[in-house]
Amino acid sequence: MKSAMKYTIALFLVSFLVVPFLRADEGMWLFDAPPKTQIKEKYGFDLTGEWLKHIQQSCPRFSTRGSASFVSSGGLIMTNHHVGARNLHELSTPENNLLEKGFYAETLADERPCPGLEIIVPVLSEDVTAKVNAGVKPNTPPEQAKKLRDAAVAALEKEYSEKTKLRCNVTTLYQGGVYYLYGYKVYNDIRLVWAPEQDIASFGGDPDNYEYPRYCLDCTFFRAYENGQPAKVEHFLKWSQTAPAENELVFVAGYPGRTERAYTKEHLEFQRDTFFPWRLRKLYEREVIYSAFANRSLENARRIGDDLGAVQNYRKRALGQLQGLQTPSLWRDFPSVEKSPNTAPAGGRINRRIVDGGRNKPAVKSPEQQIADACKAMLEHDHVTNISLFYAYDFFEAGEAFNCKTFQIAKTLVRAAYELEKPNGERLKEYRDNNLDTLKQTLFADTPVYEDVEILKLSDSLTLCASYLEKLYYPYVSDKAPAAFAAELIKGSKVRDVAERKRLFEGGRKAVEASDDAMIRFVRKMDKEMRNCRKQYEEKVEAPMAAAYAELAERRFAESGTSVYPDATFTIRLSYGAVRGYKDDSGADVAATTNIAGMFERAETQKFKEPFNPPQRWKEAKGKLDLSVPFNLVTTNDIIGGNSGSPLINTKGEVVGLIFDGNIYSLSNSFVYTEEQSRSVSVHAAVILESLRKVYGAARIADELGK
Amino acid sequence: MKSAMKYTIALFLVSFLVVPFLRADEGMWLFDAPPKTQIKEKYGFDLTGEWLKHIQQSCPRFSTRGSASFVSSGGLIMTNHHVGARNLHELSTPENNLLEKGFYAETLADERPCPGLEIIVPVLSEDVTAKVNAGVKPNTPPEQAKKLRDAAVAALEKEYSEKTKLRCNVTTLYQGGVYYLYGYKVYNDIRLVWAPEQDIASFGGDPDNYEYPRYCLDCTFFRAYENGQPAKVEHFLKWSQTAPAENELVFVAGYPGRTERAYTKEHLEFQRDTFFPWRLRKLYEREVIYSAFANRSLENARRIGDDLGAVQNYRKRALGQLQGLQTPSLWRDFPSVEKSPNTAPAGGRINRRIVDGGRNKPAVKSPEQQIADACKAMLEHDHVTNISLFYAYDFFEAGEAFNCKTFQIAKTLVRAAYELEKPNGERLKEYRDNNLDTLKQTLFADTPVYEDVEILKLSDSLTLCASYLEKLYYPYVSDKAPAAFAAELIKGSKVRDVAERKRLFEGGRKAVEASDDAMIRFVRKMDKEMRNCRKQYEEKVEAPMAAAYAELAERRFAESGTSVYPDATFTIRLSYGAVRGYKDDSGADVAATTNIAGMFERAETQKFKEPFNPPQRWKEAKGKLDLSVPFNLVTTNDIIGGNSGSPLINTKGEVVGLIFDGNIYSLSNSFVYTEEQSRSVSVHAAVILESLRKVYGAARIADELGK
Repeated sequence: MKSAMKYTIALFLVSFLVVPFLRADEGMWLFDAPPKTQIKEKYGFDLTGEWLKHIQQSCPRFSTRGSASFVSSGGLIMTNHHVGARNLHELSTPENNLLEKGFYAETLADERPCPGLEIIVPVLSEDVTAKVNAGVKPNTPPEQAKKLRDAAVAALEKEYSEKTKLRCNVTTLYQGGVYYLYGYKVYNDIRLVWAPEQDIASFGGDPDNYEYPRYCLDCTFFRAYENGQPAKVEHFLKWSQTAPAENELVFVAGYPGRTERAYTKEHLEFQRDTFFPWRLRKLYEREVIYSAFANRSLENARRIGDDLGAVQNYRKRALGQLQGLQTPSLWRDFPSVEKSPNTAPAGGRINRRIVDGGRNKPAVKSPEQQIADACKAMLEHDHVTNISLFYAYDFFEAGEAFNCKTFQIAKTLVRAAYELEKPNGERLKEYRDNNLDTLKQTLFADTPVYEDVEILKLSDSLTLCASYLEKLYYPYVSDKAPAAFAAELIKGSKVRDVAERKRLFEGGRKAVEASDDAMIRFVRKMDKEMRNCRKQYEEKVEAPMAAAYAELAERRFAESGTSVYPDATFTIRLSYGAVRGYKDDSGADVAATTNIAGMFERAETQKFKEPFNPPQRWKEAKGKLDLSVPFNLVTTNDIIGGNSGSPLINTKGEVVGLIFDGNIYSLSNSFVYTEEQSRSVSVHAAVILESLRKVYGAARIADELGK
Repeated sequence: MKSAMKYTIALFLVSFLVVPFLRADEGMWLFDAPPKTQIKEKYGFDLTGEWLKHIQQSCPRFSTRGSASFVSSGGLIMTNHHVGARNLHELSTPENNLLEKGFYAETLADERPCPGLEIIVPVLSEDVTAKVNAGVKPNTPPEQAKKLRDAAVAALEKEYSEKTKLRCNVTTLYQGGVYYLYGYKVYNDIRLVWAPEQDIASFGGDPDNYEYPRYCLDCTFFRAYENGQPAKVEHFLKWSQTAPAENELVFVAGYPGRTERAYTKEHLEFQRDTFFPWRLRKLYEREVIYSAFANRSLENARRIGDDLGAVQNYRKRALGQLQGLQTPSLWRDFPSVEKSPNTAPAGGRINRRIVDGGRNKPAVKSPEQQIADACKAMLEHDHVTNISLFYAYDFFEAGEAFNCKTFQIAKTLVRAAYELEKPNGERLKEYRDNNLDTLKQTLFADTPVYEDVEILKLSDSLTLCASYLEKLYYPYVSDKAPAAFAAELIKGSKVRDVAERKRLFEGGRKAVEASDDAMIRFVRKMDKEMRNCRKQYEEKVEAPMAAAYAELAERRFAESGTSVYPDATFTIRLSYGAVRGYKDDSGADVAATTNIAGMFERAETQKFKEPFNPPQRWKEAKGKLDLSVPFNLVTTNDIIGGNSGSPLINTKGEVVGLIFDGNIYSLSNSFVYTEEQSRSVSVHAAVILESLRKVYGAARIADELGK
């Protein structure tokens, strides 16, 4: 065992390694299959079923794809400021910018409803693998198998939803090895309670993002309401009165979004050579274009601030991931397709192989080969667009050529008109009955959409599309220049008005086909090709990959079962670790915690220049504050995007912190976890209490915490 | 004539158009072939030979590729602050940042020498076309013709340099139709006299770059010295005491860098589909990476400020150009290769065509076809790198994969060791005798090179290279990850020390081959392939293109001679135009001049946030200033990058302004000029005088102007 990095890859691909005695603090574990043995052996703590159930039901997910926790019996919810940023933005006006000024509801009556926001709590989980696979025979071709599974999933979701009155979703785990059904209790009256100013929530801004030491109060409180009253919740986390000690065991419960730890060599090569370079190219361009717009005026900056922040965050993450993949040590001894094992587990697909004399040539492709072929398929040129499937899919069906909300809204309206005429099981996934509530909530949310921002974003994405598609842009997309065409589509569309959206949605196909809205007409023109891209992508890439990874997962399962954790899937997971500093690349020690004094020092060194200028309230409160109170802390927990807003929990189940970031070395957590330097970064529970009381005069909330 | 845009293209490609009566204020004209008739007809002004000679010799060029003018008999030189920014940066220290604080030499003795800076004045110009082409026969193959011309050029430069004691350079005009020899008087003791603070020099910063209205004091004064004393110059421009009126005729004399107004359709398509998208991709990435570094600390910002400013400027320009090329109207009626005329002018290459029966098939390719083929050749895959020649050349020979000064220095040292052993005519162009002074001045200039900035830039460019070259990066470039390899090369190199550079340069091949400097060894490893890229690029692209454009130019010449202007080539040119506002895209009127009051108003609207925060000195001087004094103005002059620092001159030959930018519509001046909206932007002469006296207490300089 030279390194944890090597371990992870070897485990999934070679599969005859012995589990080491003291493992790294690795993994985003299912609450139904937690690493009890590892935690007992390394930390001497017993995970109980009761503890797990309590934590799971205390931790809701935000519809905006962040994590959160209930922190009082009165439905008080804690998450990151950056998770709630979109809602703060939507509640802002030019005169009252909540991101800039922060917000505090002095009384319950002042708590501000957030249109379109909902949170969901996983109160039910069940392994439905057998039910999903019931209709699939061993020789069913992949496309057919996918259709059968999709239909089974749709039926299960419907059945369980009706039975339990919960929102039920089936999630694919272990790359298709296991299917889990989660039943969520939904809260859709969520109100804003307290938010600090952006200047302290993300002190250090983009420059300090993914860096450490840090000084961020990246925290916001919301409250769940039911029937117009604060929700009464049974499961919530109490607030710890003591700071966690160095090396103390801590947990993170939350919704990590996506990891790719079982990816094959060829698939990771595709990520390294195509996916991330392309993603970065788009992000670099957007960051520059949005920044240039923001810098022209303060009002511009307010309007595009949220988009720009998101792009900067994605960019830094994608670059860290690409750089991780470009590390040669990652690829040494990584078995290629030719050397992949030709055996499948008992009950697997070994019977489909034909042994050809002494040459042992498989007549059926190995799963590794199927995945390599799917990667190749993404790069084969499409007959219509003359670009490869990967780019065609990304530009058209994923909408990257038309990157604006107006397009997204129009696309949803046009597709809904046609999809909702079909039986549930035959619809595109996002238009199935069990997803319709979410779809409508998003579609009809009355959130501001700015015409100038829309033109800017669409113009930029069309410009990239035109330079990438070369001669094909004209007239396939348009016979006008990108900037002119963007202005025409955005100015000529009324779908930014909610009433018009409702009219078109309710009017169905007839209303949509009769509409002379410029964007609706454009979507109708493009829809056939967009659907074609999606169909090809699903058939040539998604379905064979899902089948191949299922086969790999089967092989792993026969050996390890759920004693290894599945890749992250935006469903509830538990990670364990300890409070611990690390050495940076130059060999210098980085301490685990920072404190309030350090924040003021960093501000002074930077001459209080943005983004190192704490809000006036903090400057004025400095004399009253205990400067030794911890501000941020790092722990070895294995986290990834989606975990933002997760509580950091001690063994008593109390909140000791609030996850908001990972350090620079954690960026390759997508593919590998390394305990040596990878750290998650939290807001310390102590600074939240200290500032609620002494900076924000928010005793109402401070008193409520943990009650 | 529908539009000037259409006119330009049509003129160069169809060539049977009649010259319209009142032409647009288009063209960057040779001083030896000025548009006398057009100016007489449109403005009633007679250009005289004496006037032209006086202006030409009053306008030096900066070695850093900017324009300038002598504005006193004592060698006082005016240029843009952004032209002098590199020198200001190099004279700065962490404690005394001249870009931030500005600079004023109270006395002559305080004027600060600028290492490595030189200016050149064109005192001689001669048409040497016949001499360059003397050895070239009609049937000489292009590669051979290029070699013969290169040798003739080298010989002419040497001969004239020795004869005149001037620095003599031959410039290709009309795409090879004409060769001009310029003899320059060189001043290489240049001292800094006065510079305002960056905050007013580029008020509005990147956000306002290429926009209008503007409020920039983008001006810096230097002084030329000879033998340790201020140079006595015969030709200099007097300062106008009156502001130019609306519609008044004004001239710009300067060094426009590069236009592509004679490019064929296929060549422009290449620019649109490959060149600009690739250039923008690199610039977007760099802007983000450099910004992220700058934002981490004030010292970082100081170190990378100059690189970042340059990247932002290039990015905005490239995007404007790409958007210009993406305009469909540009391409309508643009003849493709198949429809290009098959006739050549008398004396041309018509005799090489063979008429094949009735089908009139040319056995020799038309110049348009040759250019199209050269464009195709750039995109054919290279056998070694497995990427196309265009990218291979750009990454390796143009050094875009190794974007840092340490690499550039090491490359110069390694190549010099081998090239200087060869006869003058056989050397790579930049190592020929007539270029050696410049080469040494650059190589040995003791300017700061920061290790962290170098690692950042190299790491970034290697990362892009690795993602573009995919599997080839390892081990062709390195077997290490880009970031690690960048740190190793930069930390392992001593060439940032001038003494070490001198030792290696003087030690020649022996010293270079014995060196264990990490970057020197890397350059030696890569040099063979870099030279191979260059050779292939010259043979397959440069030489055939030069020959084809020469043929096209010949055709044009037979019809128009020098009555049309040649493309810009960083040599002295004259442009004419008038002071005039315009209508923006929304149809709103934009006035020609702004004033000091407007600057203060814009600052207030932006709440004095950077880059809209004028220096403290300006705020304090506000009461003393005449707020109605004009600040910036726009004129219809046809300019392009390289014109920065050019004087704006009235018919009396007096300075009325200082060119520093073009508006957004001028960005496509590279390909087409449109008088309707394209404007050049100048600092008004009046604000320079007003601020020298009332803000900077620089009466010494104000008094000297025009004396």
